[in-house]
Amino acid sequence: MVKYLNLLYWEVFRLEENEKPEQGEGLNYESLVEKQTDQLEELLDRHDMKELQRRMEELNEFDVAEFLSRIDDNRMPMVFRLLSKETAADVFANFEAPEQERIINSITDSELAGIMEELYVDDAVDIVGELPANVVKRVMRAATPQTRNLINQYLRYPENSAGSIMTAEFVDLKKYMSVKESIARIRRIGEDKETIYVCFVIAADRRLEGIVTVKDLLLSSDDTIIEDLMETNVVFASTTEDQESVSAKFADYDLMALPVVDNERRLVGIVTVDDVMDVMEQEATEDMEKLAGMLPSDKPYSRTGIVEIWKNRIPWLMFLMLSATFTSMILTSFEDMLAVQAGLVAFIPMLMGTGGNSGAQASTAVIRALSLGDIEPRDALSVVWRELRVAFLCGIALAAVNFVKMLLLDGMLLHNDAVTVPVAATVSMSIVFIVLFAKSVGSMLPILAEKLGVDPAVMANPLISTVTDAVSLLIYIYVAKLILHI
Amino acid sequence: MVKYLNLLYWEVFRLEENEKPEQGEGLNYESLVEKQTDQLEELLDRHDMKELQRRMEELNEFDVAEFLSRIDDNRMPMVFRLLSKETAADVFANFEAPEQERIINSITDSELAGIMEELYVDDAVDIVGELPANVVKRVMRAATPQTRNLINQYLRYPENSAGSIMTAEFVDLKKYMSVKESIARIRRIGEDKETIYVCFVIAADRRLEGIVTVKDLLLSSDDTIIEDLMETNVVFASTTEDQESVSAKFADYDLMALPVVDNERRLVGIVTVDDVMDVMEQEATEDMEKLAGMLPSDKPYSRTGIVEIWKNRIPWLMFLMLSATFTSMILTSFEDMLAVQAGLVAFIPMLMGTGGNSGAQASTAVIRALSLGDIEPRDALSVVWRELRVAFLCGIALAAVNFVKMLLLDGMLLHNDAVTVPVAATVSMSIVFIVLFAKSVGSMLPILAEKLGVDPAVMANPLISTVTDAVSLLIYIYVAKLILHI
Repeated sequence: MVKYLNLLYWEVFRLEENEKPEQGEGLNYESLVEKQTDQLEELLDRHDMKELQRRMEELNEFDVAEFLSRIDDNRMPMVFRLLSKETAADVFANFEAPEQERIINSITDSELAGIMEELYVDDAVDIVGELPANVVKRVMRAATPQTRNLINQYLRYPENSAGSIMTAEFVDLKKYMSVKESIARIRRIGEDKETIYVCFVIAADRRLEGIVTVKDLLLSSDDTIIEDLMETNVVFASTTEDQESVSAKFADYDLMALPVVDNERRLVGIVTVDDVMDVMEQEATEDMEKLAGMLPSDKPYSRTGIVEIWKNRIPWLMFLMLSATFTSMILTSFEDMLAVQAGLVAFIPMLMGTGGNSGAQASTAVIRALSLGDIEPRDALSVVWRELRVAFLCGIALAAVNFVKMLLLDGMLLHNDAVTVPVAATVSMSIVFIVLFAKSVGSMLPILAEKLGVDPAVMANPLISTVTDAVSLLIYIYVAKLILHI
Repeated sequence: MVKYLNLLYWEVFRLEENEKPEQGEGLNYESLVEKQTDQLEELLDRHDMKELQRRMEELNEFDVAEFLSRIDDNRMPMVFRLLSKETAADVFANFEAPEQERIINSITDSELAGIMEELYVDDAVDIVGELPANVVKRVMRAATPQTRNLINQYLRYPENSAGSIMTAEFVDLKKYMSVKESIARIRRIGEDKETIYVCFVIAADRRLEGIVTVKDLLLSSDDTIIEDLMETNVVFASTTEDQESVSAKFADYDLMALPVVDNERRLVGIVTVDDVMDVMEQEATEDMEKLAGMLPSDKPYSRTGIVEIWKNRIPWLMFLMLSATFTSMILTSFEDMLAVQAGLVAFIPMLMGTGGNSGAQASTAVIRALSLGDIEPRDALSVVWRELRVAFLCGIALAAVNFVKMLLLDGMLLHNDAVTVPVAATVSMSIVFIVLFAKSVGSMLPILAEKLGVDPAVMANPLISTVTDAVSLLIYIYVAKLILHI
């Protein structure tokens, strides 16, 4: 235990001796933050505002934002106003929309103007995009004309485009500068830039000519000219490029920042890696939501209202319920046949489930591979061939196990007289065809969607289940006719 | 068109006049790379190795790796050997395992040693983890004893832990250094570090005392002492921490690099943002695979063999097929009752589908919210209350539409005599209860899993469908008994 005593961390967190972790318990950032937050709450309850203020300035802005989101709504704006101007803007950018709105409604115009000036343009655009119109009006009034113009310009880019997530605060250099001049420029203007580590070399007409990193600058001699140092083979994005393609570039090329250019190759903004991580989370969430038959929501689950959740979920549920009419019709039209062999009905849910699950596996694998750029629409044939072979292996294994299971479990153990060898053969053979069909459809529909320029994830598992449900039933009925001669 | 003539890009790519994009067509990095790759292939076909070599050195390593993966296997190693030692290592790190194996098997021991020395430890660990044992032996022999020890040490960390994705190449500073000394140190040792932008201040016993960024250094005066400049409130990870928690920290705190410490708070490695992007992609893919009832694969879809895909898919398919036995048993035991009202059978698939889809929506939303840290197991009650209200709204809407639809479409238009008002009421009322049940189960099972320390994503949609299938059927039968008195 003694060895923990001189850890800086415990000093910062001011933990009591008995709060330090037992040896071997391990260090854990989360539990430190939790203890810290508890202490802030105590200070607040004791009204020790001076110490509270001092401690909040020491903390990471994200943790301060989390702390403020959790204290009750009446005291929150008051505590927020204890923060210094710089910290206030950082904490504000880390808030969700409801907290931002609450703050805006309880600070003065000049405080709001102060925050707006400290915010990066991309954060300001995010905030403006999520607030109700009357609040936006006040925010825009508080911004300087220059910021206001930038925000308006950025808001015009299509949603989820590179233009909509880029920011304007980057370091620009000229190719005739020396390393020494460049470092001097970074020192002069770097403070308010979203990144200084990647600098953008632009011509007089703002065309992007290359990039140079601070690493290059630091590792070169002072009198090296930027033109000799810069990388001209630059990975870039166009303003209208989809953010999913932007994040793929970051992952592929291990980028820290990506220049965004217009059609004349003029540099209009940059995207930084921290924003791209948010994009990746958001895109993955959207894909999962679509795969489960929901409309994508733009808010975290815990922040979404009941009616909004309902609105996101009911369209697919309704559509799928109505399209099950086909299955009903098939069942109704074969009622007489199924009455002859009533035992067949018992296996319909299993067959439909197996079809749905097989199709969902294939579609999920293909949708994810498409979205990661692992496969492309032109690979359609090889994908189907791959899925058909997998389906054959799966179908045979399932059919064999099912055949044995039906005869032993359903037939002998559960005394289901309807289960005879021909019936078991009918069900097992249907499985093979159903899995073959489900996996081909499940893999083809997303590729087809991509080819048509539609998001493949709308070919969601529920949709594929509904298609396979109807076809599974038809397969079952025709195999039964063939084998059982009914 | 003329305005494109002086773009540096076209010079690098050496595009012919007629290959330049039409005005307004837009700039697109992907199509530039494609043209470039075509030109490399032409050079290869013409055996112009000197020009090919020169052009590959100009390209981004990721694009070179992509180009090499696409040319045929016989010529690939030969072309790879044209690369300079530094580029070769970078390209090598960008390869997938099959290409890495091919290269290792066709270069000399000293060439391999050269690559190993240029690789970052985390890349070397990745490579060693994916290669067959006999190839690993040769790779380890080619590494220096120091690298070999590091690789062995890193391989001992649990899979998917912070320790398994960290790297050893970081800049360490002492707190008594001045800014000038620190910059001098970065210039001296920075070349081979994975990042120089975040520097780690450590004590003599390697305990982490703080971090300082190059931005801080550049914006401070030369004689500032690191101790006065460094941030002591450092976000860190422990070696055994799960990589999902690591990537959440990057997203929350907008980090570029994260220190990884052992139980005594000694700095053992760092995780950089480029590796975290790969982790985020991989974790999202795994969650999607689990949600669709597949075991997670560690390779891209297009690289996974048929048998391996089968092995990932068959366990859940088999388990779910067998668990459908319950549904069969329920159907069998109510055979007589269903025979009295044969028309009821036609709506079973729709009811089961609606239950499965409702449950999948809830479980996906909850699983994603859990994995993003938006909700925690202690929120269980509020989540269920939320889902019950949503379920009620969904159930009522679906039931109302279904009631009207059954009477108008099934009853009047399709002349299904079995559809009477009581039957429509039975089906509609069942929908309400089924949706209520499915949404509660769908939201509770993932939270329960999280509480038990199991990955919530194993409470996958197929599993929830199987549970709701059986219960939906029971609900339907009991509602039918109640309303139709059968």
